[in-house]
Amino acid sequence: MTFTARLTAAVRRTGTPLCVGIDPWPERLPGRAALGEHPSHAALALCAEDFGMAVIEAVAGRVPAVKPQFAFFEGMGPAGMVALERVCAYARERELIVVGDAKRGDIGSTAMAYALATLDRDAAFPCDALTVSPFLGPDTIEPFLTIADANDRGVFVLLRTSNPGSARWQLPILDDLVAWIDEQGAARAAGLANVGVVVGATKGPELEGLRARLPHAWMLVPGFGAQGATAADARKALLPDGTGALIPSSRSATFPDRPDASYDQDPVSWIASRVDQVMEQLAC
Amino acid sequence: MTFTARLTAAVRRTGTPLCVGIDPWPERLPGRAALGEHPSHAALALCAEDFGMAVIEAVAGRVPAVKPQFAFFEGMGPAGMVALERVCAYARERELIVVGDAKRGDIGSTAMAYALATLDRDAAFPCDALTVSPFLGPDTIEPFLTIADANDRGVFVLLRTSNPGSARWQLPILDDLVAWIDEQGAARAAGLANVGVVVGATKGPELEGLRARLPHAWMLVPGFGAQGATAADARKALLPDGTGALIPSSRSATFPDRPDASYDQDPVSWIASRVDQVMEQLAC
Repeated sequence: MTFTARLTAAVRRTGTPLCVGIDPWPERLPGRAALGEHPSHAALALCAEDFGMAVIEAVAGRVPAVKPQFAFFEGMGPAGMVALERVCAYARERELIVVGDAKRGDIGSTAMAYALATLDRDAAFPCDALTVSPFLGPDTIEPFLTIADANDRGVFVLLRTSNPGSARWQLPILDDLVAWIDEQGAARAAGLANVGVVVGATKGPELEGLRARLPHAWMLVPGFGAQGATAADARKALLPDGTGALIPSSRSATFPDRPDASYDQDPVSWIASRVDQVMEQLAC
Repeated sequence: MTFTARLTAAVRRTGTPLCVGIDPWPERLPGRAALGEHPSHAALALCAEDFGMAVIEAVAGRVPAVKPQFAFFEGMGPAGMVALERVCAYARERELIVVGDAKRGDIGSTAMAYALATLDRDAAFPCDALTVSPFLGPDTIEPFLTIADANDRGVFVLLRTSNPGSARWQLPILDDLVAWIDEQGAARAAGLANVGVVVGATKGPELEGLRARLPHAWMLVPGFGAQGATAADARKALLPDGTGALIPSSRSATFPDRPDASYDQDPVSWIASRVDQVMEQLAC
């Protein structure tokens, strides 16, 4: 089954576009306090793995997808990458679609190495889709698309990111990048294509315009929750049938609101009940 | 000592701007053939580590810098990241400046995680500088600069990459990105600043123009050798005193020309003598 067919089926089956982020911020992890002031990377990585597994237990069967953020795992060194590998593999085992949030981009031969690391059948860090930066040019996105197509995986190209300063170097190329993505989608598939885009829910009316201009593209729409966008903002990325977009929630869905607060029950139950609330907000 | 002062001293001491790339292409590694048809990631990672160590032995004291390419290590999974960690640490121990070629870029809080993973004092993958993609906006480069400044490390921002398709989405923002980088350099340092740029040696006259417009920026100038630029092309990035640019050579300096050829002596000696040739070409 193609990536987009799987994604559509998963959103329909669960009845929600919510994609739960797995962002193991070292200072926020359950169990972090017990490690003392200067924990080793290995100790943090074990906490990160437990956290990732708790998120997966809490959401498997209930949301279509999870989104591990590579940066936090990388910060914990090779032990962190062991945690990332296990979290990706276990999420896929539990039939969650894994969107690797790595924002990779490099010249052709190197892009191919990143694609093989994540989107190939025996990838080290098995993902169903990967976020990719287009800045180096179309020839540097191609290797990701080639490996994705060959393995029924997908790619989300950064188009308008959710951060405050994203306009400066994204708006000048927006129209041409939209045109290129639309061509790819049309050339590669009928219906929604394996080439999706990342558009911040924080971008308001722009998001609606891009949804209209990219009828074949799945959208990954960060910014809902901690970054300030509302559920109504994010829902503008959805097609009328409720598919066509994944709406990530990371910090809001997995961490207590106050940085110094602790989970007041076991993390799996805590995250499960928080995810219920986020799903309700998103359904409105 | 600031990053740029160390870089200037290293180029002066060795008398060359050559930066030797450490790109462990799985199929080209010395010892690869002995691993059979489908080697495990762990077996490949050991080969990659041996290869990286051989490059370091061959070039320590003779060139200013090495440039490990993160993608190939990542492709070998957590074991590959162990190899990367050891290669970075050993290169620094041998007083080589380590330019981590990772082309990272993400929203602020996540960019900070990538910066801490590479440029912090106790980083998991200790580098002296990191290549960074500007596409997400100025606010997403800031965390890298903050951590670099605090630890006397550096950042090379992608400006004009060496690949064939780089013009399409880089030229439209080039002038504004040049202006922003020049501001950073002026604000942060007298002389050459900790904010450098990546400009492909394949970009000919453009490179000369950018050298003139960015008098405070160190340049990392890929494309010499396998990608088709000549030594004369690459040398256009140098200041009159022979500093101001690092010229990477990866495949040409570390692998036999024919993909199916093997090293006809031990890899350290083979790489050392190949690096001699590359240094001679670059000196002309």
